Amino acid sequence: MRIATIREAPYSAAMSAMTSTASTPELSAPDASLAPLQALCADDMQQVNEVIISSVDIASVPLITHISQHIVRSGGKRLRPTLTVACAKLLHYDGRRHLSLAAAVELIHTATLLHDDVVDESTMRRGMQTANNVWSNQSSVLVGDFLLSRAFQLMVGDGSLEVLELLSNASATISQGEVQQLMAVGDLDTTRETYLEIIRAKTATLFSAACEIAPIISGRGDLRAAFRGFGEALGIAFQLVDDALDYSAKEAELGKAVGDDLREGKLTLPVIEAYQHGDVSERAFWQRVIAERDYRDGDTQHAIEILQRHEAIKTTLALAEQYIELAHGELVQIGGEPTAHTALEACLRFCTARVY
Amino acid sequence: MRIATIREAPYSAAMSAMTSTASTPELSAPDASLAPLQALCADDMQQVNEVIISSVDIASVPLITHISQHIVRSGGKRLRPTLTVACAKLLHYDGRRHLSLAAAVELIHTATLLHDDVVDESTMRRGMQTANNVWSNQSSVLVGDFLLSRAFQLMVGDGSLEVLELLSNASATISQGEVQQLMAVGDLDTTRETYLEIIRAKTATLFSAACEIAPIISGRGDLRAAFRGFGEALGIAFQLVDDALDYSAKEAELGKAVGDDLREGKLTLPVIEAYQHGDVSERAFWQRVIAERDYRDGDTQHAIEILQRHEAIKTTLALAEQYIELAHGELVQIGGEPTAHTALEACLRFCTARVY
Repeated sequence: MRIATIREAPYSAAMSAMTSTASTPELSAPDASLAPLQALCADDMQQVNEVIISSVDIASVPLITHISQHIVRSGGKRLRPTLTVACAKLLHYDGRRHLSLAAAVELIHTATLLHDDVVDESTMRRGMQTANNVWSNQSSVLVGDFLLSRAFQLMVGDGSLEVLELLSNASATISQGEVQQLMAVGDLDTTRETYLEIIRAKTATLFSAACEIAPIISGRGDLRAAFRGFGEALGIAFQLVDDALDYSAKEAELGKAVGDDLREGKLTLPVIEAYQHGDVSERAFWQRVIAERDYRDGDTQHAIEILQRHEAIKTTLALAEQYIELAHGELVQIGGEPTAHTALEACLRFCTARVY
Repeated sequence: MRIATIREAPYSAAMSAMTSTASTPELSAPDASLAPLQALCADDMQQVNEVIISSVDIASVPLITHISQHIVRSGGKRLRPTLTVACAKLLHYDGRRHLSLAAAVELIHTATLLHDDVVDESTMRRGMQTANNVWSNQSSVLVGDFLLSRAFQLMVGDGSLEVLELLSNASATISQGEVQQLMAVGDLDTTRETYLEIIRAKTATLFSAACEIAPIISGRGDLRAAFRGFGEALGIAFQLVDDALDYSAKEAELGKAVGDDLREGKLTLPVIEAYQHGDVSERAFWQRVIAERDYRDGDTQHAIEILQRHEAIKTTLALAEQYIELAHGELVQIGGEPTAHTALEACLRFCTARVY
């Protein structure tokens, strides 16, 4: 099956592809893994980590160092900066600018996480206590501001106005998406289109920018749109899978509590699907838990049963697989250095495979 | 009396001058007013306001527009962007770059206010309800992030890496200062030096950067240090006066409740002075209210009486006047266009005169 690229038809291609019965052989391939990407980027990521650690080491304000190190070291996959590094390798980039810019991307992401946890009143992330839980909401807000400023200092140090434009735009779009998501909390009338707009803004924008740095620093302006499309589709797929996992993963695997989104009244695609196809009693359930924010013991299990009845998780993952196809289409068009290309393909497969 | 410039001896000059009995004739001059500055900059500030309003008008996310307009229109003096405009006029600058950069400065300040109010759990600012009070802490955090990103977008639009460096450094320093202030909450061992370090970072840095934009865009790199010193000294004086007002202004004048700092356990110079010179019972009072955060009815009045006994407000204002002298010394050195020069002198006098 040949589907339109994400640049040609952002949502509609994936949407219409959803209704087809075409097989997606790439997604069931055996080498769905992050390992090749991590091996490829290990040396560079070591240096990226050093930039990050030294950026947050503020002798005069130890609280900044403690909080930053807590979240920086809390075992995330570092997927976004790894994408910057891998995309640079895909273009045979042999300079050092990707190192500080990958660090800037991760600092923007970390700032977002700190503020997200305050907004969501989260207590756990990646199996560790959140910073706002260990310290306070106040310090998470201020340290998040610090990390965002530090990211801009790294970009200024790099000296490219194109990169500064890319990442300042991304940063503004991310906060817009976060505000939109906050406004949609408890709103069962949230449409699938609005949901996709939100995750595109709050998640896919940074994936996209992380990838688009590579053609800028490699002097391949002709490939910016392809890298942007690749990162955006991957980011949307990543968030769709994350939202599916919130109703299906074991707590130990996800590192956060299953059912968090439900407790927070957050509308994600699985619930939107189930609500739209639900009967009267099911709708009353969502109404109570999501709209009235009246969460009770056992509600997560009941929600999962309803989602299974409507195959809402399956539908969500099928859409994620379509976005992975779109990303793959861009990657094929880019071509690039073979080892990096293969590693990025395995990463695409991993994105949806991590559910099973 | 001729005192050292702030660049020569940041604190010590003001400190030693404090102990002298030299008169400071400039500060009692009759034309202590913001009016000449406001008249000088009125037309340009109208255009700065238009840049700000259009920057925060996000059709797809009305909550961002509402919150931003609430705080942007809440009647602040717009002192920081006005300084950018006035300093540009001082250097006979005749371009348009100062307009968007002044707007960027105000957006950074506005983002800081939104996050400050969340951190301080404030309910009133400038006589209006704070955004976190009208909407929620969550939206204030996210909209603050948006405004900070917008500020960087305006700077990128301007295209000067020097300005981007100046303001990204300022933004990082401001959050460092805010974190330091948070760490000092309730800590009666906070020294006068630490207090000055905090207000220099959290307040004076943005005043300083607002002024330093002018020599950059005017091609007068030789004057950057003088403008920086001018803005920094003015900013320190401004914060000293603000902290004095918190124990002396009428609520209607200040637009916020007198005694806020006391209720929040915030250590400011008046309290540091009074605590260091206090007797056993006074120290026990500060211990209960500030260190144990056990604020009771009547405590503000009692605190004001103790501060009067030790002339702590007077000492704080005398230090502010010394910093105004330092700022004035830089201004004299700069010289510049006479109308702008006179307006900035009147602004310096206003800074301390607003107390009486």
